[in-house]
Amino acid sequence: MKNESVPFIMLAEKSSDAPFYRQIYESVRDAILSGRLTSGTRLPSSRALAAQLGVSRITVVNAFDQLLAEGYLEGRTGAGTFVASEIPDDLLTVNEPEPTGAQTPETRPPPPAISKFAMEIRGERSGTDADWDRVVPFRNGVTAIREFPFDIWEKIAVRVIRQAARRFRGYGVPAGYLPLREAIAAHLSGSRGVRCGADQVIITSGAQQALDLIGRVLLDRGDRVWVEDPCYQEALAVFRLGGAEVTAVPVDVDGFDVGAAESVCADAKLVYVTPSHQYPTGATMSLARRLELLDWARRRGSWIVEDDYNSEFRYTGRPLASLQNLDRHDRVIYVGTFSKTVFPALRLGCLIVPVNLADIFAAAKNLCDTHTALIEQAVLAEFIAEGHFARHLRRMRSLYEMRQAFLVDESGRRLAGMMKISKASSGMHLIGWLRDGLDDRAVALKGREIGLDLTPLSSYSVTKRQPPGLVLGYTGFNEREIAEAVEKLRSVLGSFD
Amino acid sequence: MKNESVPFIMLAEKSSDAPFYRQIYESVRDAILSGRLTSGTRLPSSRALAAQLGVSRITVVNAFDQLLAEGYLEGRTGAGTFVASEIPDDLLTVNEPEPTGAQTPETRPPPPAISKFAMEIRGERSGTDADWDRVVPFRNGVTAIREFPFDIWEKIAVRVIRQAARRFRGYGVPAGYLPLREAIAAHLSGSRGVRCGADQVIITSGAQQALDLIGRVLLDRGDRVWVEDPCYQEALAVFRLGGAEVTAVPVDVDGFDVGAAESVCADAKLVYVTPSHQYPTGATMSLARRLELLDWARRRGSWIVEDDYNSEFRYTGRPLASLQNLDRHDRVIYVGTFSKTVFPALRLGCLIVPVNLADIFAAAKNLCDTHTALIEQAVLAEFIAEGHFARHLRRMRSLYEMRQAFLVDESGRRLAGMMKISKASSGMHLIGWLRDGLDDRAVALKGREIGLDLTPLSSYSVTKRQPPGLVLGYTGFNEREIAEAVEKLRSVLGSFD
Repeated sequence: MKNESVPFIMLAEKSSDAPFYRQIYESVRDAILSGRLTSGTRLPSSRALAAQLGVSRITVVNAFDQLLAEGYLEGRTGAGTFVASEIPDDLLTVNEPEPTGAQTPETRPPPPAISKFAMEIRGERSGTDADWDRVVPFRNGVTAIREFPFDIWEKIAVRVIRQAARRFRGYGVPAGYLPLREAIAAHLSGSRGVRCGADQVIITSGAQQALDLIGRVLLDRGDRVWVEDPCYQEALAVFRLGGAEVTAVPVDVDGFDVGAAESVCADAKLVYVTPSHQYPTGATMSLARRLELLDWARRRGSWIVEDDYNSEFRYTGRPLASLQNLDRHDRVIYVGTFSKTVFPALRLGCLIVPVNLADIFAAAKNLCDTHTALIEQAVLAEFIAEGHFARHLRRMRSLYEMRQAFLVDESGRRLAGMMKISKASSGMHLIGWLRDGLDDRAVALKGREIGLDLTPLSSYSVTKRQPPGLVLGYTGFNEREIAEAVEKLRSVLGSFD
Repeated sequence: MKNESVPFIMLAEKSSDAPFYRQIYESVRDAILSGRLTSGTRLPSSRALAAQLGVSRITVVNAFDQLLAEGYLEGRTGAGTFVASEIPDDLLTVNEPEPTGAQTPETRPPPPAISKFAMEIRGERSGTDADWDRVVPFRNGVTAIREFPFDIWEKIAVRVIRQAARRFRGYGVPAGYLPLREAIAAHLSGSRGVRCGADQVIITSGAQQALDLIGRVLLDRGDRVWVEDPCYQEALAVFRLGGAEVTAVPVDVDGFDVGAAESVCADAKLVYVTPSHQYPTGATMSLARRLELLDWARRRGSWIVEDDYNSEFRYTGRPLASLQNLDRHDRVIYVGTFSKTVFPALRLGCLIVPVNLADIFAAAKNLCDTHTALIEQAVLAEFIAEGHFARHLRRMRSLYEMRQAFLVDESGRRLAGMMKISKASSGMHLIGWLRDGLDDRAVALKGREIGLDLTPLSSYSVTKRQPPGLVLGYTGFNEREIAEAVEKLRSVLGSFD
């Protein structure tokens, strides 16, 4: 037990804008952790140290109190304050960062390992702080956000927040806020022919989480999954990274074809389809194909995941009924999203699951993130229940139809001979077909240089090569923006002639 | 090709409050799907059917248009409207639900299988719509929500919503809204001594999602994990259901002990600890134990998960520095939550990860749910940056301290000889120790009958048997509620004498 006093305590320079008590705390702590102050060393009295440092005594006392509380120091009645004797000296220096090259490969401790899943997603590009809010034509999947009735949203939000202390005292239920589940069940049965009650609705943080939950609840590592080719890549990634063996099945103008699938891979436990509007080709799955798929699922005991991502935007006639509507054997899991109909940053989506799976999906949701934020669930519930949602959808339907027509007209006039594009009866994007042999990725890269956001069709291809094309989102941009972007696109395509 | 006209179309009774066009659509569709109307059958003219049903012709035309669009009918110029010939007749009847008992076990198709994960969570209780908002003493982990400054929250929310169309045009970055990550990094380095920049912060939908992401990014099936015994059960469940082999290590008054762990299970890839305030015993991990744990992780190449769930509520002195603060080898993953400091329904939490893992965690977050809702992230960012968060924490710290003292006093006066309870220097709950031999689960059940929410200490036990006790949350209840609840508890405990 050493009893000599510490000669002085130096304040670290780097923390000079921190409060004095914290500077003292840190320098004593660092001195102990680096072994410069050893167990049993007596510290100067708070009075002496205060005088030495030119600070008030209470500042030193505060620092010492913190060090005492955290176990660095110990007080002995009448004797003063000491570096704690319980600190294991041999651990102190090993806690310092190793000097570079100080250890041979044999003695250097192993770096911690990450999971196989993490190894596979390493290097994935997932949005950077610099460019995340840069939304330019023809980014796909963004809404006409300037047309969203944020004034109504604000009024509802204020009302919900004022009631929050009364309505949201603790945690919510994992399946989601009941009034929102009721509003969604009513909306989907009316507009999409989905057969469900609120007890079958699971509120998710967007469609992506819905897909992730499906992977967890329905698939084990090694299970076979069919997806469409071309395919929504984030769905493919979720199934693949969950360990499923994914087979991509080429789609045609009638959408996914069970017969074609069986000829590529004899069987699957789950099939992921976008029947209303195949992503990204836009094909609508025919009635015959729907019935065949349901029959296959019934015969084989398989699951059908129906991603109904932008089916609300049908410009001729009413939206087609969902595939789930035809299911009589509880084989269909329906995925819906409000990212396209409200706004993407909202992060609300839903699953409609067979009654006997509702509790399991809720339990899985509970383990994933307890439940989705209640205030936004409540705001959306009232937004739907009061009719604002249906009204907004109607407005966007006619706005998007006009924007689509404008894009087709502008492209027809200015890009004749360079790109073929034609009207579609639904969706939020069109495919601009390029001339054979052109590399659509090269076109997209070139476009990026002059501020265009172009998605090459080939980026959705899984195994089957697609003809060159660009996936052009038009819903998020007004006519001036579209016209300017078409002009830019002309210069890009011209450079490939 | 049959050409005879359909005798009549009957409207289904059950849908009598649906619009007429929909009733017509549904009855024709159901007739086709059940095989009553076969391929090639000619339908009556819209005029004739309108007259027969007593509705306007446009109503019938609307229904026919929908049926044509969905492929149930086809029009032949000059000849009328027919049931589509492409519908495969043999699929129609199989789409009907099987009559009960109609099939032998041999011919009945297999029911779809769910995953192993789903099999294990089947039957988990995860909150019901009936009781979710019933928050009564002594529910643990709820805040004094009536004291939350919702007026300020509302003002910020209004501001954020008014800027939303400009700020949130598309999707956000998976790691989270940069101003919130900056605010959290600044707050945690000041109040918790966490060493991090905004680039190390991943915003999650609550701490539960943080744990789930950790499991995915760091663990493979079969990896060994140490947890504390007793333990926060939702963490245990996430690791276990992810396929890890979990070993529970008894804690003592100094918290988790590496030496004890190694004697139970030689090694682990990851250890989950609550060093500031062991959950639920309240023990603070000693400095020596912290250094030992960090040294072990460095030597073995293992990960330490520090769940810092309610460390802000320290009633004597300042909060102790985090374990992450001592880490010089990038072994610690820090988990924080705003459920206890803002309100539980918010669903915002964070991960602080070593710099070289930040991109991988962001990519995993992207696959799980793209990103957390932006409006609430932005509101919280401004709430923190403007100082409201720190002010609210200070107010709650003194309020919770008073509520704790009140609970201890009341219990001391009214439950003497029945339950031992003493003050703690931190946390949001106390343990009320029952007399030896009493079954704390039976006490909790009895309490539920008269409206108390009691959590038996034994429910946190993994393998080691705990002495009987009740985990009593006090932060969410005022003195009147606590006094009444203590009186109720007296009658419950009295009934066990």
